[in-house]
Amino acid sequence: MHKNIIQDIRKYVDLSESEVVVFNKYVEIYQLKKKEFLLQESRVCNYLYFVEKGCLRMYFINKKGVEQIAQFALDGWWISDYQSFMKYTPSDYYIQTIEESSIVSIDNENLGILFIELPQLEKYFRIMMQKAVAGAQLRSKLLYEMSKEEFYFHFSTSFPEFMQRVPQYMIASYLGLTPEYLSELRKKNL
Amino acid sequence: MHKNIIQDIRKYVDLSESEVVVFNKYVEIYQLKKKEFLLQESRVCNYLYFVEKGCLRMYFINKKGVEQIAQFALDGWWISDYQSFMKYTPSDYYIQTIEESSIVSIDNENLGILFIELPQLEKYFRIMMQKAVAGAQLRSKLLYEMSKEEFYFHFSTSFPEFMQRVPQYMIASYLGLTPEYLSELRKKNL
Repeated sequence: MHKNIIQDIRKYVDLSESEVVVFNKYVEIYQLKKKEFLLQESRVCNYLYFVEKGCLRMYFINKKGVEQIAQFALDGWWISDYQSFMKYTPSDYYIQTIEESSIVSIDNENLGILFIELPQLEKYFRIMMQKAVAGAQLRSKLLYEMSKEEFYFHFSTSFPEFMQRVPQYMIASYLGLTPEYLSELRKKNL
Repeated sequence: MHKNIIQDIRKYVDLSESEVVVFNKYVEIYQLKKKEFLLQESRVCNYLYFVEKGCLRMYFINKKGVEQIAQFALDGWWISDYQSFMKYTPSDYYIQTIEESSIVSIDNENLGILFIELPQLEKYFRIMMQKAVAGAQLRSKLLYEMSKEEFYFHFSTSFPEFMQRVPQYMIASYLGLTPEYLSELRKKNL
């Protein structure tokens, strides 16, 4: 079952039942346990991933050999290394489940076929990408404007569900804070 | 004349001469002098802008009352406040020419009509947005990994033409450096 992605597509474009049958031919659905990998460093990221249910993190290993989280994806979000996906270059990233997850994946070649068979998906993905650009612009503006403390409070107020589901040390990594400092901030916030 | 945008579209999708005529009906072309505004804070950003020739900067006024540059756009780049464009909300940004520029603009409503009349533009804009997401991911990774000094050297090596055309104090603003510090870095680099 992958009703969430179908529902998401139908928010933006028409997709009849017979078109859903076509769609299903070109996507794969994975049921993954916690801590399973969808992508590992130095492989080409040949897929776009949609989180039907669950939670993913995308990270790379920085120069100090430490995991640096660059992005998360919760239910209903798309995630990929778009540079690697578009240019077929090896990725610097890992994409891994944080909790048990149900993931819909579309590979590069099948996406091309889907755009021919269901051209309305061009619009859907155009809108998804446009939303991602808007999100990146907003995030970049917040990072210019806010101290790390303010960014943490903004983040925790904007995404309370997220804070419940994602381990604190991962949120610290994403925000560029030490886990100890994040723990202090949380105490102040109580 | 706006041959660059037509050429850019044709890199990704077909566009016949008669379709160019349709396209022209729905876009506007501005010849702007240096320091003219395309967008001002608190207005809705109702346009996507393509730099046919020239250079733009997108900035906001931060809490200290200082201009903070968030993005630049050179020949062949698209720029907009996508959040404002998609949600019809007032923008926090200014978009202004840095040099004499020739700009192609498409407003929100005309873009909708163009997608109906020339559906292949969905693919073109899907690819443009995907490239923008890939760019944002790369930039965010560099910011995690690099010191401001390293980021400056990376930037100046990757975009030498840019360094020639954009005033130093604007590059300093974009990189979050003081103009004095940037000037020191440049001397070191000579």
